This record gives sequence, structure tokens and C-alpha cells, in this order.
Amino acid sequence: MQIGLIGLGKMGYNLALNLRDHKHHVTAFDIAIENIDRAAAEGITPAYTIPELAQQLSGRKVIWIMVPAGAAVDTVISQLLPHLNPQDILIDGGNSNYKDSVRRAEQLKATDMYFLDCGTSGGLSGARNGACTMVGGEPEAFQYCEEIFRDVSVENGYLYVGKPGSGHFVKMIHNGVEYGMMQAIAEGFELLHKSEYNINYKEVARVWNHGSVVRSWLMELVENAFRKDPQLSAIKGIMYSSGEGKWTLETALDMQVATPVIALSLLMRYRSLETDTFTGKVVAALRNEFGGHQVDKAD
Amino acid sequence: MQIGLIGLGKMGYNLALNLRDHKHHVTAFDIAIENIDRAAAEGITPAYTIPELAQQLSGRKVIWIMVPAGAAVDTVISQLLPHLNPQDILIDGGNSNYKDSVRRAEQLKATDMYFLDCGTSGGLSGARNGACTMVGGEPEAFQYCEEIFRDVSVENGYLYVGKPGSGHFVKMIHNGVEYGMMQAIAEGFELLHKSEYNINYKEVARVWNHGSVVRSWLMELVENAFRKDPQLSAIKGIMYSSGEGKWTLETALDMQVATPVIALSLLMRYRSLETDTFTGKVVAALRNEFGGHQVDKAD
Repeated sequence: MQIGLIGLGKMGYNLALNLRDHKHHVTAFDIAIENIDRAAAEGITPAYTIPELAQQLSGRKVIWIMVPAGAAVDTVISQLLPHLNPQDILIDGGNSNYKDSVRRAEQLKATDMYFLDCGTSGGLSGARNGACTMVGGEPEAFQYCEEIFRDVSVENGYLYVGKPGSGHFVKMIHNGVEYGMMQAIAEGFELLHKSEYNINYKEVARVWNHGSVVRSWLMELVENAFRKDPQLSAIKGIMYSSGEGKWTLETALDMQVATPVIALSLLMRYRSLETDTFTGKVVAALRNEFGGHQVDKAD
Repeated sequence: MQIGLIGLGKMGYNLALNLRDHKHHVTAFDIAIENIDRAAAEGITPAYTIPELAQQLSGRKVIWIMVPAGAAVDTVISQLLPHLNPQDILIDGGNSNYKDSVRRAEQLKATDMYFLDCGTSGGLSGARNGACTMVGGEPEAFQYCEEIFRDVSVENGYLYVGKPGSGHFVKMIHNGVEYGMMQAIAEGFELLHKSEYNINYKEVARVWNHGSVVRSWLMELVENAFRKDPQLSAIKGIMYSSGEGKWTLETALDMQVATPVIALSLLMRYRSLETDTFTGKVVAALRNEFGGHQVDKAD
């Protein structure tokens, strides 16, 4: 199938090679020329502008957008729109907020075009060798593109969820679950780390990955990490986040759903961004005020 | 190898068959005669009393205890002790508290006997076809029994952790991690359930198990559960617990380690035991006192 691809970052580049391996003809654009040239060397047809990309696609156009969530997606869509025709299909494979995807689907529908929101999981190796994709949008557009999702995903690894926004919604929840699972695993190793036992974390992760209830891909990744750095002594415990966990919690709050584990997983990430906190100062000051309890002087 | 087995409940019975399949000669006792006879029909040598079991084992005795954690383990040990000799080895394969295992190892050491604490994960299918085992105790006793742990576990699924208690300690932490992972997964499905989308939970679990970051054995089990009952409408959301999560949190408190996700996973289980709470009544009453806010009358 002829596919346009916009965005040749880490995910987009691997996706391009994955599509190519499945005999699709990929024409790709990126804002960085070196990314286009790198892909061209791998058999991807280069397009150096968005209009050029659109012109190179004949018939009903299918264009996969793989750019950072937010304004960049709207920019790409607005630059594409003059070059699209009714029935053309845009796929957003990034980590967009599902509410944006609902809005974008409506925007395209106004000119008889289709928008598919595709949540993509599995990291770089997934994009390259087989991802997990969750797709929302009009059924007709999904069916037209189904072979693409089948080909870029592992076997049994794609799902048509339902109406526009539902693909990115399910991917957002996936990431919320991921936050909770990661924090649970990490707290377990924190307890092993602080215990009286002299424990080999890599070996514990290894045995937990063989036959235990907690065996999982995340546990395999943690085993890999401990293999490379047995005490993780080369890195700091600062836990950044890129939005989906926050959206999950915001969604939970809007729906008044109690999700304490997902909430605390996110809040502990924020806590990790600071070495000291104003909360800590306030509590320490209060204990001192009412009970004369010890306070530590600031450096 | 000649192995004594005490306890032919769900886990013990499956373990007996697993050991038998690996050409070990298993002599087994249970407090329920029907459990002994059921095992005897499968090629397990029956022993109808604990002394009889001990007498049937020649040379250096190795006896695997698979009974409910707590007093039952101490009862079995005290009944066994008169029939043991120096160098004999007891293995506790149940979910005992690691502090009890430290105490029992010291108790046996006083008469030159050995105690191995073996945390066993993987559920009934694991006990039958290959478990995950984490073993603590004296290295010499572990080495003597290593072939047993290798045989009952999946490939790469056993680990000698270290000194007495460490096997059950690592198993306890495993269960704490399990609580957190389960609650994270469950909160995700709660959000899907309350969303505006008409989502097929089994299909979401299925796609998440193929290529996604959250793929895991627990996600496979949840997929199985949704396959059997798509809305889980036949069961209540009451989450019982059997001790290890509580011990993990108690250990975290003793060590002053922040484990909010494991803590909340446990507390949400307790919350699920009640349909209404006194906390709820107190907060409702307070809102009414200061702001005249609505309260719902008790039934």
C-alpha cells in the first residue's frame, strides 16, 4: 500500500522501516533533512516538503502522522489539508490527548476526510519489529487501513476500539496502568534495597520473570537494567513523565473515579523532581512550633 | 531423590505430581485421609501419620512442608522433630512470614538440622507444571536440595537468595509488587468501564498482551477472566487478602520506606470489604455541620 509518513523521529523512523519490510511503499517527510536522508538510504521515498509528500501520493491518500503530541499535530494537519481530497485518511500514531483526537476527527469530517487515532505501544523495538496498536475512528476508514495496522503490529497486536478518540483513550489508560505497574515494581526493589539482606536485584528480577505471578515485560526491562548497572548507581532517581499519566488522572478526576495507585504513581514522579520540598519545610516548622521538635537547618 | 511432603492441599497436591513427574520418590502425609488416598492413586507413597512419614524416609531426610502459614507450620515442625536426625532438612514452601522462617531456622539449627524457606509463586499451574521458587537458608542445605528446586521450577525459575528468611522475604516483596500491579491494572479497567466508550474489555486485555508495555501474566489472567464473564457481572468486587501484602507494608513501615502504591493497594482491598464506611459518615456529617451540605439518610 502507498503510505505517507510525517515524522521520522525515533518512533517514526522505526515505523517507516517496519512498513517497508511489509512491502508498503512509504513516502516520508520530516522537519530535519538529515532524518529524511537517513530514511532514504533505507529505501524510503523522500519528500522534502509536506506539499511534495502529498503530491507523490496517488489516489486515496493515507498519511500516518508521527510527531510530538500537541500543537505539532495541528500544524501538520493544517499544512496537509489544502492537499487532501474527500475520503483521504490521516492517522495520528502519536501520544495525542484523546480529546484533541475527537476534535481533529470532527475537523476532518467537515470536509469528508477521515481521521484515525492510533495509540501505539511497545517502544522503539515495537515500532521497528511489531507494535501494539489501538485504533479509533470511523469503521470504514479503519477497514481501509486495517492491513497497515496488522502489518506494523505483532500478531494479535492491533484493535479497532470504536468511535473517534477511543484509540488514544485506551492508549492513555494503558499508560496510566503502566505508571502504576512501574511504581509497584520499583517500590518492591526499594524494599529489597533497604532490607537487611544482600540481594542481587538482577537475579531477583530474573527469577520473577520465570514462572512467577509478576512476570511481565516491564520486569524483563528491569532485569536488563540491573544487568547493565547492578545498583543503578550511574543514574539518578528522577522520574520524568510525558503527559499520559497526568491525562489519565485528570480523566479519573473528571469521571470521579477513585484511582489511588495511578494517582500516587504520578505524584511520586513529581516528588522525585525535587530533592527537598516546601511541604517538608512546612511540616517540619509546624512540628517545631507545637512540640519543639527538631528541624534541620537549610544548607 | 526421596522426598517427604506434608500437606496435600491444592498447592501440595500439584507439587507432589510435579515432583513425581521428575522421577522423585514422594512420600506424603495430609491431615485429610481422602487427600492422601487421592495422591496415592497418582503414584505418591502414602503416609497416614507424621511418624510414619518420617520412618519411610531413609538416610538424610528432606521434607517439604506445604501447609497454611502460621501455627500449622510450627505444629508440623514440633511433630516432626522427634523423628529427625542431625543434617536433616525441612523446606517450608508456603507463604510464611520471613520472621517466622528466621526463628524456625534458628530452632532447627540448635539440633544441627536445616531449614530452607522457599517462597513459591506461580499459582496452581505453577506448582503442577513449573513454579518460581525463591530459597533462603544455609548454602550447604540449599545445594543438597538444589535438584528439587530446579525440577519443580520452570527453567531459570529458582533462586538461592541468601541467609535464612531471605527466600520468604523476597516472596513477600513479590506479593507486595503483585498487589500494586493488580490494583494498577484494575484501576485502568475501572476507567475504561466508566468511560463514554463502549469498550470490549477482553479485546483490550488481548491487545495489551500483544506487543504493549503492560503485557504480563496478570494481564493474561484478566483476559481469561473477561473471556469467561465479559462484564464480570457474576462476581462482587470484594478483594480479600491473605497476609503477604500486609506484611510488606508493615516491613516498609518498620524500615521507614515510602511505598504508597503498595500501601494504597492494600488499603483499597480493605475498603472493598465494606459497602459503606464510618469514614464516609464522619465526612458527610462534618460537611453538613459547617456548610449545611446534603447528607443521605441511612437505610
